[in-house]
Order: sequence, then structure tokens, then C-alpha cells
Amino acid sequence: MKAARVHSYGRPPSIDEVEEPRVVGPFDVLVEVGAAGLCRTDLHVIEGQWAAIQNPTLPYTLGHENAGWVREVGSAVHTVTPGDAVILHPLVTCGLCAACRTGDDSHCSNAAFPGLNADGGMADLLLTNARSVVKLSPNLQPVEVAALADAGLTAYHAVRKAQPLLTPGTHAVVIGAGGLGHIGVQVLAAITSATITVVDRSAQALELAAKIGAHHTIDPTDGAGSMVDQVREITESGAHVVLDFVGEHGTPAEGIAMLRNRGSYYAIGYGGEVQVPTIELISREISLVGNLVGTYNDLVELMTLTSAGRVALHTTSYPLDAVLDAIHDLESGRLVGRGILVPSP
Amino acid sequence: MKAARVHSYGRPPSIDEVEEPRVVGPFDVLVEVGAAGLCRTDLHVIEGQWAAIQNPTLPYTLGHENAGWVREVGSAVHTVTPGDAVILHPLVTCGLCAACRTGDDSHCSNAAFPGLNADGGMADLLLTNARSVVKLSPNLQPVEVAALADAGLTAYHAVRKAQPLLTPGTHAVVIGAGGLGHIGVQVLAAITSATITVVDRSAQALELAAKIGAHHTIDPTDGAGSMVDQVREITESGAHVVLDFVGEHGTPAEGIAMLRNRGSYYAIGYGGEVQVPTIELISREISLVGNLVGTYNDLVELMTLTSAGRVALHTTSYPLDAVLDAIHDLESGRLVGRGILVPSP
Amino acid sequence: MKAARVHSYGRPPSIDEVEEPRVVGPFDVLVEVGAAGLCRTDLHVIEGQWAAIQNPTLPYTLGHENAGWVREVGSAVHTVTPGDAVILHPLVTCGLCAACRTGDDSHCSNAAFPGLNADGGMADLLLTNARSVVKLSPNLQPVEVAALADAGLTAYHAVRKAQPLLTPGTHAVVIGAGGLGHIGVQVLAAITSATITVVDRSAQALELAAKIGAHHTIDPTDGAGSMVDQVREITESGAHVVLDFVGEHGTPAEGIAMLRNRGSYYAIGYGGEVQVPTIELISREISLVGNLVGTYNDLVELMTLTSAGRVALHTTSYPLDAVLDAIHDLESGRLVGRGILVPSP
Amino acid sequence: MKAARVHSYGRPPSIDEVEEPRVVGPFDVLVEVGAAGLCRTDLHVIEGQWAAIQNPTLPYTLGHENAGWVREVGSAVHTVTPGDAVILHPLVTCGLCAACRTGDDSHCSNAAFPGLNADGGMADLLLTNARSVVKLSPNLQPVEVAALADAGLTAYHAVRKAQPLLTPGTHAVVIGAGGLGHIGVQVLAAITSATITVVDRSAQALELAAKIGAHHTIDPTDGAGSMVDQVREITESGAHVVLDFVGEHGTPAEGIAMLRNRGSYYAIGYGGEVQVPTIELISREISLVGNLVGTYNDLVELMTLTSAGRVALHTTSYPLDAVLDAIHDLESGRLVGRGILVPSP
Repeated sequence: MKAARVHSYGRPPSIDEVEEPRVVGPFDVLVEVGAAGLCRTDLHVIEGQWAAIQNPTLPYTLGHENAGWVREVGSAVHTVTPGDAVILHPLVTCGLCAACRTGDDSHCSNAAFPGLNADGGMADLLLTNARSVVKLSPNLQPVEVAALADAGLTAYHAVRKAQPLLTPGTHAVVIGAGGLGHIGVQVLAAITSATITVVDRSAQALELAAKIGAHHTIDPTDGAGSMVDQVREITESGAHVVLDFVGEHGTPAEGIAMLRNRGSYYAIGYGGEVQVPTIELISREISLVGNLVGTYNDLVELMTLTSAGRVALHTTSYPLDAVLDAIHDLESGRLVGRGILVPSP
Repeated sequence: MKAARVHSYGRPPSIDEVEEPRVVGPFDVLVEVGAAGLCRTDLHVIEGQWAAIQNPTLPYTLGHENAGWVREVGSAVHTVTPGDAVILHPLVTCGLCAACRTGDDSHCSNAAFPGLNADGGMADLLLTNARSVVKLSPNLQPVEVAALADAGLTAYHAVRKAQPLLTPGTHAVVIGAGGLGHIGVQVLAAITSATITVVDRSAQALELAAKIGAHHTIDPTDGAGSMVDQVREITESGAHVVLDFVGEHGTPAEGIAMLRNRGSYYAIGYGGEVQVPTIELISREISLVGNLVGTYNDLVELMTLTSAGRVALHTTSYPLDAVLDAIHDLESGRLVGRGILVPSP
Repeated sequence: MKAARVHSYGRPPSIDEVEEPRVVGPFDVLVEVGAAGLCRTDLHVIEGQWAAIQNPTLPYTLGHENAGWVREVGSAVHTVTPGDAVILHPLVTCGLCAACRTGDDSHCSNAAFPGLNADGGMADLLLTNARSVVKLSPNLQPVEVAALADAGLTAYHAVRKAQPLLTPGTHAVVIGAGGLGHIGVQVLAAITSATITVVDRSAQALELAAKIGAHHTIDPTDGAGSMVDQVREITESGAHVVLDFVGEHGTPAEGIAMLRNRGSYYAIGYGGEVQVPTIELISREISLVGNLVGTYNDLVELMTLTSAGRVALHTTSYPLDAVLDAIHDLESGRLVGRGILVPSP
Repeated sequence: MKAARVHSYGRPPSIDEVEEPRVVGPFDVLVEVGAAGLCRTDLHVIEGQWAAIQNPTLPYTLGHENAGWVREVGSAVHTVTPGDAVILHPLVTCGLCAACRTGDDSHCSNAAFPGLNADGGMADLLLTNARSVVKLSPNLQPVEVAALADAGLTAYHAVRKAQPLLTPGTHAVVIGAGGLGHIGVQVLAAITSATITVVDRSAQALELAAKIGAHHTIDPTDGAGSMVDQVREITESGAHVVLDFVGEHGTPAEGIAMLRNRGSYYAIGYGGEVQVPTIELISREISLVGNLVGTYNDLVELMTLTSAGRVALHTTSYPLDAVLDAIHDLESGRLVGRGILVPSP
């Protein structure tokens, strides 16, 4: 079969002909890849930024946002059968560690991460296990949902954690309405009744945000005042919840400054730093909350919302063979929406 | 009546003869002070550190940790009657703002703070309202509990917020087992079944901690390794909850470093700074939680535990007339336990 | 001023000329009534069914669902000012008892209930206190919202309690889409993303339900099978949450039967009985939850949703002088939507 | 190996020589039985009461409360190794169904139940899977803990669900301090600070209850008044939580009657019926909560408490060969504490 593999860091991946993976264990699931999302993480993988952390054996196959159809299952798998359309949780988890036992499987202590430390989904076939596959509703196609498997799932997880705080009458602020943030806005609109304010420097992103659920939009570069001032004006005493999908270039400080007393800042984007005097944490009684990718159950819920038409992704598809074109478009900023690689039938 | 009043910042308070306060409004409660706690905040008040924040009109009476007996109540007060022994919540709240309506009255937007911006309890009498008084069980005396009104309440509030995370098998670490911290240890032992580890540089504080509930104690200066290393050894993968009663001199960084994935750092002490890369917040999915003084309901619960003998304070009493001696002892480090000022009968 | 008063049970109320109430206490609020809801409870009051429970002194004024404009406030009231449009929580609460202190003021142990045990709102003026008034958004009028003060608030409270269970992918079933139930459907659609199934015997009620948020509707009399069977077919393994707005004529048994394992039955309507073997409670691990009228905070949230256009009521207005006509229409089934009495300007 | 097997219902089990089970699948775990609890459920199994529900193929081996030492594990098992002392969750679960994925594995839709529908632990060896085994602390022996695997776990689960309601100052009432109830009392004392009142007709049970955590004890047959009256006197307005370990002979009605407004009744025992008018559920806003056996995570937590010496069981051991003696003693009321069957070494 074909697979887009990294052979050495700093050099573009190549489309190789490799041996097909096979079902061996009783919980194995072999998936015909229908779509694999391409994102900046893949660029970082190729550059070698993840080499030390994930330590994969080269060459290996890219692709950590995957969906497709089940081709074959191990003897103990009763939740999917060949032919089922599925989306794959990014982690292949053990089901036995303490994290898995409580449903927090994104912290599984024995997980593999296809596309980062094992062969991923930019290939005709992907071997995973029964714990990672979520069956799709008949009205969903792999190509539509693949990019929700990691990016969308991360946005969903953060909003889902914040949901209990977002009772009627509260204010949620989204900083950054790009790939993850625009999923966050849709999820906020679907599962809360909070007033949603979106901050972004792109007029196009704000326009989209307004269509998919934002009640207020703020462009901090338009001369109408700082984002903190504008949020304080909209929310009166500050936001109850800030979801920071940027996490650098000063957004942590601004996101924290725009909280009301007892408010909570959710970090999703990264690159920058949180720096707060303890007296400020205490006197305003605020919380700062880190957010990783979502759990398997989060992915099930996200698929429910997607199937109900409440969450949708803008994507551009490329044949798997054109992976270098897709990478080039992503690097040069010409890729609109999320890039999706589709193996030839 | 007598009152210990600040006349100008930077100079010691004096015992003045002042007019007795009187019940005017229907919710007023006039309290014969039985005991008023003395703490470092009083020293800071006298030095003028709180002048700009609280902006009281000088001269005014010190004393923000108060307990006593009801002398007289307004026409609408049905919860206490003259003669009742009571402890006073540090804030006199409105009962009408959004914070009060949800029980979060420590964030009341119309509160007075006797001892900081209004006449406090270092006097024979104190005027407060029905929303601040908690009736004491027959087995509790004002002099025993006064210092729980603010310091103890702050420790209680933080542990109470952390309680849902402290299920059987979890690890709580207390950094700093002084005035607040040693209350925190007792509350942890009373309302959770977590394994409690206490970090302090004082052998005496650690000895006390071991008697009142700590399962492990760590002196980071004893050469047995850093507090982070020692906590990691005791907890295997790090603490589920860290309660930092110091909040300066590097404890925020160490407290955060000793968390396990998905762990939570509770800031109670202050003076220092929290500084964390967003990537660390996210990859470990940790939370940082600020904690203010407790609510009225927290104080009711804390009195329940105190009445049941599960929380106790070490105190040293002084007559109100000897306030300058008490202040001097506190400044010079000779005051053992919490200082309590007691008006002459 | 005019007031619709009950003089003796079993006889129609009369429009009397009575003295205007006056602001006396510091927390009093005098309200010019803009609208008072009329409901079956008023019929029961007139018949004397509530006499023993509420024990009012006759004659007294009807009207327990009230909204209007503030005319005058007591000296301690800072949350509303004369001219403000307000809706009134049905209870006038104390703010001091344990229930009030936690925000559960619907269980206040010192509450008055205007219209049931004190003079209500079917009059030109109503005297209440600062704890019962919720300021309306500029886009809401008293006549539009009055009937939400009790009936709507009860529906809201039950859905709000159930909300944490109604995560994406769950099933909520509403039994009875009448006055309360159709508010429940709107609230479910606004604050959850659950799949909503509505059961009612009225085709008209089901038609309305489908317009305001129901995904499935069931008429148990249409020959398509029992409501339990139909719910089981829609939900596969049964409902996660059943909200029973009927509570009699067998609905408790059916509501419980249609739950899935670990599901919860919320009783709102009453008249019937819950009867379940303990083995069934246990083996299916189900919960049965009673629901009273909502709290003050619930009413604030409900007004937020109403102002945002997410909850709306169908009403028919009558002049206060025509109270007997309105009662007659309600008794004879000719009153469409909720009846609202409006004093002459 | 030896196994105590049921050959036909209504006749005593016999000790048979059977083939040893073997590890086949990758998640299999073969356990040398150290102890198997005997309880009334076993008597009911022998009588055939569970035949229709569990439908096992006869002959099969009894024993649903098991602990021992791992002898051999399948290739994918990394959580235990041969020689480890373990206790077994009563269900062998799939890890893939929706219930398992959220940690509610006691509702696994694919579970086997050794001792009820598959070969149990009254044998030298028991075959289970990696999802059922909890490793014991070095200070715990299988014979001490086996009976906690089902009976103790059920008591733990109910208290654990009630814990969030049992804040300081609240009242918990335990009805029935027998095999399950006396575990419930210990767990209440370990994980809550509620005031504990125990109701039982046995003076001996009440004496034990007082030693292990009960603050008040009530014998409803001692002439001092009904249990409801006595509870109301102790609790002032009724209990916040009632845990009914009897569930028949009128205790459901009494348990519900002794609740305060907003209180919750937890059903654990069964045999009787809950019968409540909906008006009572609503006007008092009470909840009725069914409780099944605990989850795997519950068992982990219970072992933590047991290892810390906070929960202990009274037991009487018999050699496996003496199973008929043990059954006879249980039937005739001569078995003190829980009966434990121990295979010969």
C-alpha cells in the first residue's frame, strides 16, 4: 500500500510503497483510511521538533487525524464490524491504567500516538485498536470529520470542561477563531447559552464567527480600544470564562486581565507564558486551567453534535499522492480551512 | 467604651475612650466583643499598607477576626438573640448582589470590612449585621474561635474547594504549616481521606503537623533532597492537589512542579508570582486556583468542625489594654500561636 | 386602589377599593403592578383548597405571578430604583436562614407567599422586598413575562437541575407539553443539546412542541404503541432524563418505565403517586427527583433566556376589572395560553 | 483442581475435581483463589432464584466475592504479574461499551458475573481478566478482604455517591447496620464529616456501630419512639441523607419520612417498595436514589481505605472442603460476621 513517510527530519516526506498492516491481536482494528487531516503539527514533525518527545523509529507514516472504514477486526471486537465508517481517537489506549479506568484516556500511561510515534493515517490502511474507533452516523463521511479527530477534539474538550461555569447570563470569550477556535465557537453555541464574544485580528475569521454563534466580535487592531477594554465594556465586570486558542503574543496576560472575579482562563493554544502575581490569583479568586486533547467520550459527543449539524469544518481535499502540494500550500498560507488527504480508492 | 484605634499610619494604635455604637437599622446586631484576633495584617494596617486599598477614615478601630456575645438586635433579626455567643464573618455583606444571592458572599459588591475599612473588634463593642453572625455551639467560647474568623476561614475555604478532587487514594500536599497551614491540615484530615504531606522549614511546625493529621512531613532544608523530589517519591507520580500557604520565595514554582498530570495548585499565601509556559499548563493539563477568604457558609461549616473537636487553634491571650504588648510580641516573633485580645469584663 | 380579593372560600373574588400599601422597612419595594398571571392555582385558592396549608387572613388579594414597575424603595435598597421594570420571585424571602444563604431561597424558612398567604398582585400596587425583584432587560415588558414568575420558573428549575445529565447524545423526554411543559421544552432546547422527545395527547400541543425544540413527538393515543414502547424505540435503551409535567393518571409509572439504566425521573406535575419496588430502583440504579418552584437565581437566568428570545409564552390579557371573565374563561377551557390580568393605567 | 459446584437447583453443591482453567486470551488473568466470600446470595443461587436471570449452564462453580494471587497472565496484561495479591471486581467487563468508557463499568453491557453466570471463586483457581483485578497493598491479605468484593463494594458505592451531599454539619442516617450497613458506617466516617445516626433492632449491631463511627444509635423497638421521631429529634429538621440497607419491612416509608426538605433517600437493600405521592416528592423537593454494586474505581478506593485501616470486616473462615458446614451455619444463623472459604494450600 501507499504511505506518506518521514525518512529523515528536515526533509519532505515521500510516498512509499509499504507492506499492509495486519490484524494480529484480538482487539486490533484495521481501517481503510478515508481521510487524514494535515496540520501544523505535521510540519513540526517533519522539522524534527517532536523527535525527542515522541521518539519514533524512522521511517514512519504521518497522519494523526484519521477517519475511514473498518476492513477487519480482531476476535474480541464487538463494537464495530467491517464496512463501518469510523473516526479514530488520536491515541491508542490501554483501557487498564488509572486514567483509562476513569474515562480520562487522553492521559493513558501506555498510549501509542499514530502519526507521532507510530505509523499514522496518511496511507491506504491504518492499524489501530477497538478503543480508538468511534462509529459514525450514516449522515457523516470520513472526509468531513477527519480533522475533528485532534484539532476539533481539543477545542471540544476545553469548552466541555468550561460548560458547568457557562450558565445562562454568563459571558464566554474566545481568543483566536482559527482552526481550533472556530470549532470552539460552534461548540459553545451548541452546548451552552452563554453570550459569546470572539477576539481575532482577521476580519474574515470574525465574519465567520458571527455566522456560527458569536454574539460580539472584537478586532483588537481596529483602533476601538484594547481587547481587554472592549471585553470589559461588553461584559460589564469581565468574562466568566476566557478560552485562549492562541496562548502566545501576550494573549495569556490579556485573557487573564479580562476575567471577572472568580472567572476562569482556559489555555488551549501555547507558545507563550502565564505570569501572574499570587496576590492577583487570590484577591480576584481566579483560576487558570490547562487543556489537552479530549477523551474518547468527548469524541463521541463531538460526533453527535457534528451529525446533528451543529459543528462543521471548512476543508480542502488533496489526493494522498499530492501530500507535498498540500504541505506546500499549508506552509505558504494558501490552504483554506483544514487540509485533508484522501487515498485513492 | 474602649477601642484600639489607628490615628495615623506608622504610629502605634492607642486605647481610646469612644462612644458606644448603637443599633439603628432592622438588621443591625450589636456584639459585646469576647475576643479579637491579632495578625500580621494588623501590622500592615498600622504601617499604612492597606490605606490606599481600603481607604478608611482615621481614626478607626482595629480588629478583623471577632467573636463575642450579642447584646442587642434590630427589629428584623430572627436568627440570634441577646446573650447568644457568636463568631463574625469578616465581611458585612448586602444579601442582594449577585455574589450574595449564590452564597459567594465573600465577593459581595457592597461589603464593609470591619477592622480594615470600618471600626473593628478591638473594642468593647462592635456593630455588625445579621448576615455576618454565626451562632456558636454551647461548647465553644469566643476566645477559642475568634482567630478562625479570617485566617482559619481562608484555610478552610481553600481545602473545601479542593475537596471534590481529594477522593480516597489521592495525595494532598500542604506547603507551609503555620497559622493558616496548620488549620488546613486539620481540615484536610476532617473532610477528606487523602494522604497528607506537609512541607515546612520548621521542625516544630512539622511535629505539630504530624500530630494533627499529616501522614508525611518534609523539611526541604534537611539535606534529604528538594521538596519536589521528596513529594514525587511519596506520591509516585506527583500530588493531586497542592495547597500553597506560602505563595512566595519560590513555592509557586515548586508547588506546580510537584503536581501530577491533571493536578491542581491552590494558591492561598501570596507575595510571589506564578510563572508557567502555556505548553506546560496544556501538556500536563494542570490547573492553578486562587483562593480568597471563605463564605458565610464556609464559616458555619468550620464552626461545626471546631465544635466537634476536629479543628483547634493554639492561642495566647492579652487584655485589650495590652494591645501594644501583643503587637510587640508579634513583631519580635515571641508570640506563640495566634494572639487574641480580650476586653475587660 | 383596586384589588381582586377573596372574601370567603367558594365564592368569586370581588374588585374592592382598598388602601394603598406603603414602604415602611428599609428593604421594602412598592411595585405598580403591570401584569398578574392567572392560573389553576387561583381557582384552587378560591375553592379553599389551600386554606389549611397557607392559612391567609380573609379578605386578601389574589395574584402570585407578578411583574410591574418599581414605584418606591426602602432606604437600604440599592438594586432597583423607581421606574425600573421588574418581575417578582413568588416568595418574599428572609436572606438569613440556611436555605437563603446557599441560594436555595425557594426553601426559605421565613418566606411570605403573596397571592397565597399575603396580598398578591391582582391589584394596582403590590408591596414586596428587595430580595424578590428581578430587574427586566429593556426589551421585556411586564405583561409578557408575568406568567413566568411561578409556572415558568417551576419548569425552568427542573430542567436546570437535570442539565448536568443532559450531555450531547443524551435523550430527554417531556411528558405533558402544556403551560409548564412547553416552557420546559424551550429551556431544554436553549441550555442543553439533548435530543428532546415530547409526549402529549393534544395534537396542537405536539405541533407547538415541534416548533419550539422537540425532535420527536409522541401521541400515546394515536395507536402507534404505548409511550414507553415509542420512547424505547427512539432512544434505543431508554431515556436518560424524563421530565413529568403531569404526575398523575399513570404517568409516573410510565415515566419510570421508559428510563434507561442510571436514568433519572423528574417529577414536576402532581396528583398521582410513585410506586416502585426497591429491587427496581437498585437493579436499574435509577433516581427519582422531586422539583419545587425555582430560586431567585433561576428566575434571573430565565429572564436572561427570555430577553434573548429563547423562551416565550402565549398569553391572553384581560383588564383587572374583568377578573371574573378571565376566571370563567379559564374554568370553561376557553382561555388560550396563560391568562394575564392588567390593571388600568 | 477442587471446585464447589451446583449441579441442580434445590440440592447442596458438591466439591468436585475439575480441570484447571487456562490463560488463553491476551487479557486473561488466572488467579489462585485465596478466599471466597459466602453470602445469602449463594443460598438463593442454590435454591434456583437466580436461574432465570443469570441462566448459567449447570454444573458451575459458586463464589462471587473473590481474592487471591495471580498465577499467570495473558500477553497484553501489564498491570499485574504472577505472585501479586489481588481482589477481584465481581464483574468481568469489556472496556468498550459506553458504560465502561465512562468508568461506570458496573453497568457494562457485556459483563460476565463469575459465581452467578460463570465459574466462580469457590475453587482452587479462577479465570478472570485484567479489567477485574485490583492489586492489594502489601499489608492486605486476600482472606481479609474477599468479602469486600461485592457486599462491601455495594455499601461503598452508595456512600460514595452520597458524599457530595454530606458536607460538614449535615446528618446521615444508616438504616440497618448488618453486613453491608456496618461497612457503610465505616466509609461514612472515613470520607465524610457528617453526623452519623444508625438505626438497627440489634443491640449488638448498634454497639459495633458506635465503635466504628456512629455518633447516635437508635433501636426502634426500645420504646423510646419511632425511628422517624428519634431521627427528627437528633437532626432537628430531618436527615440530609438516608442510606437504607434494609429496603423492606416498611423502612422505605420510614426512611423517606425522616428526610428534611431537599433530602435524599438512598436505596441499597431491597425486597420492599417505595410508594410516595408525587405531591410529596415535589413539595419537599426530595430525591430517591437507587444503588447497585460499585465500579472498579470504587473497589480501588475501598482497598485504599482498607489498607489505611479505616474499613475492616469481621469474618469466619472455613476450608473450601467445608463449604456445606459454612452454608449450614449461615442458614442456621450461627455464622458470625462474613463467611470466608479458603482453598487448601
